[in-house]
Amino acid sequence: MTVLVPYPTLLATVADVFRERGVPPDRAAVAAEALCHGDLTGMSTHGLVNLTRLYLPLFDSGRTDPTAGMEVLTDLGASVLADARRALGLWSASQAVELAAARAARHGVGLVTLRGATHIGCAGYHAARATAHGMIGFIASNCGGQRIARPPGGREPALGTNPLALACPAGDRPPFVLDMSTTVVPTGRIRAAARAGEEIPPGWLADDDGAPVTDPAAFDRGDGHLLWLGGTPETGAYKGFGLGLLVEVLGALLPGAALGPTSAVSRDDDIGVTALVFAPHALRSGFADDASALFGAILGATPVDPRGPVSYPGQHEGERARWRRTHGVPLPAELYEELRAVAPALRAAG
Amino acid sequence: MTVLVPYPTLLATVADVFRERGVPPDRAAVAAEALCHGDLTGMSTHGLVNLTRLYLPLFDSGRTDPTAGMEVLTDLGASVLADARRALGLWSASQAVELAAARAARHGVGLVTLRGATHIGCAGYHAARATAHGMIGFIASNCGGQRIARPPGGREPALGTNPLALACPAGDRPPFVLDMSTTVVPTGRIRAAARAGEEIPPGWLADDDGAPVTDPAAFDRGDGHLLWLGGTPETGAYKGFGLGLLVEVLGALLPGAALGPTSAVSRDDDIGVTALVFAPHALRSGFADDASALFGAILGATPVDPRGPVSYPGQHEGERARWRRTHGVPLPAELYEELRAVAPALRAAG
Repeated sequence: MTVLVPYPTLLATVADVFRERGVPPDRAAVAAEALCHGDLTGMSTHGLVNLTRLYLPLFDSGRTDPTAGMEVLTDLGASVLADARRALGLWSASQAVELAAARAARHGVGLVTLRGATHIGCAGYHAARATAHGMIGFIASNCGGQRIARPPGGREPALGTNPLALACPAGDRPPFVLDMSTTVVPTGRIRAAARAGEEIPPGWLADDDGAPVTDPAAFDRGDGHLLWLGGTPETGAYKGFGLGLLVEVLGALLPGAALGPTSAVSRDDDIGVTALVFAPHALRSGFADDASALFGAILGATPVDPRGPVSYPGQHEGERARWRRTHGVPLPAELYEELRAVAPALRAAG
Repeated sequence: MTVLVPYPTLLATVADVFRERGVPPDRAAVAAEALCHGDLTGMSTHGLVNLTRLYLPLFDSGRTDPTAGMEVLTDLGASVLADARRALGLWSASQAVELAAARAARHGVGLVTLRGATHIGCAGYHAARATAHGMIGFIASNCGGQRIARPPGGREPALGTNPLALACPAGDRPPFVLDMSTTVVPTGRIRAAARAGEEIPPGWLADDDGAPVTDPAAFDRGDGHLLWLGGTPETGAYKGFGLGLLVEVLGALLPGAALGPTSAVSRDDDIGVTALVFAPHALRSGFADDASALFGAILGATPVDPRGPVSYPGQHEGERARWRRTHGVPLPAELYEELRAVAPALRAAG
């Protein structure tokens, strides 16, 4: 059972919810777009399902400040260090990308690195803002002090799922958007399977001896441990763990945010977010054509199975978003009811 | 059978070989250090084994120019676009990092992006130069027009093994150095197994139907296809492929170097190399202490097996390098003979 909600209705509804919590209208609009991006593109683990589970409790407990502005601590022109002061991460990560893009236009590269941030939602949404300027956007965000995944060979979790994203224009096609946790999957995929009562494939969780665990409920019970991208040491676990550390270093050590391994409490407060934007047209001509040719060649590659054309990350998500913007966003009935319960606008419409 | 060669002898020998080919002495010293780094740290697939297989043929065929200097095409202060003009990549990648570090000291971030480069050896060697300045170094390098790995679902290779590296100071300990191909393993690991007549683990190569191939010779026969980090689509193949594209975008599309998917000939000419350096101390105080605490906490994590302490990428390699700098670098007898055949200094010593 799904309900097809017109995209403008969905956006306005979610923006209203944020405005009711005291978020200024322009920020509420950005945050709503960032949150609905998950459902619009099909990355539903990072979409509206998190509104009542993750974001509204942040307001209720005072862990996010709806009106706080970014405080710039250091400004070197090409680079800015700022304190996000617990503003809604769904908004401040986009603000960081826009500021980095403005700096990149002048300096070729722009860096905005934030401490004191809150959960940013889909990293790819924010990174992709750079493509509207014809630029390349990168986001790295840790999970503050929250510890979720163990180092290879370690008994206790040390780092979060530490997402990174890179977005690049691809001509007329949807932009290339790599948006990934550095663990095999994000925790939302495992919890969604647990809620649905489904098994998960081997390679996502392992027990203390490294044997595959296919019961998703084992994760929250603490006897199924989330693996890094690469799975076992033989197939690249140290690369996945290393990428998790790359995100910890660029996203949180650089700005001085909370770090998973050294925080007293395992909680996703004081998240670090680094936005890096490259302005290729400031450095050379021909970039847009070369980018279009690169991603066109990927799409044009001969497939093993003629029914399954080759694609690049972001392409299917972009096509899906285009369709849903026009025809509506399908929400599971249960999620629609959750939204109705907190959203006055949708209550009035329903 | 191994021969223990004093590290200074090894460095001087290799530098002599490069000087004989016309490389100026200061560059030959850097290139020798970059090449010996593989054997010094134990990443031997990227070490001296490549001298006669990869680098000397580049001189013989004129595909590298021993004396060419980097030509700056655009200089925006924080960012520089340059043509490496086929200079030895073992040297020019380090030159790029040093220039980026100088720019980062002023601007907080420094970007040097090269087209026209040649094979850089261990990306991590170059990235780690930034740590000598107390900075964070990042390298992305594609393989020029060379196509090695297929997109998921594709019949033909489209990209190289596209390495990336990140290096960060870790206090008194060896720096954190993530140095990885974005495929499960680099091709050198597979060819080394083939030379040794050893099987490889499942998860490195797959046949046309996706079934694991454990005969390393299948790779050069063309019936074992190198997998991306993540292995299958269910366990993250699109992330590995996406990281390969991230390197193609940052390393080669940004500077306008050759691109795997669009090059007429699959050959590692006109390689793109991007060096990015972050200067944390220009942005904030306390970075060095926080970095030391972060990596100290990783090393101090409780291991599953008390005999196998937890480590971070670069730690074992750094410890090994420290030992070998003092006690000598073990080279397989066969490799030692290869080196003797091309190295006048070692011939005289032996």
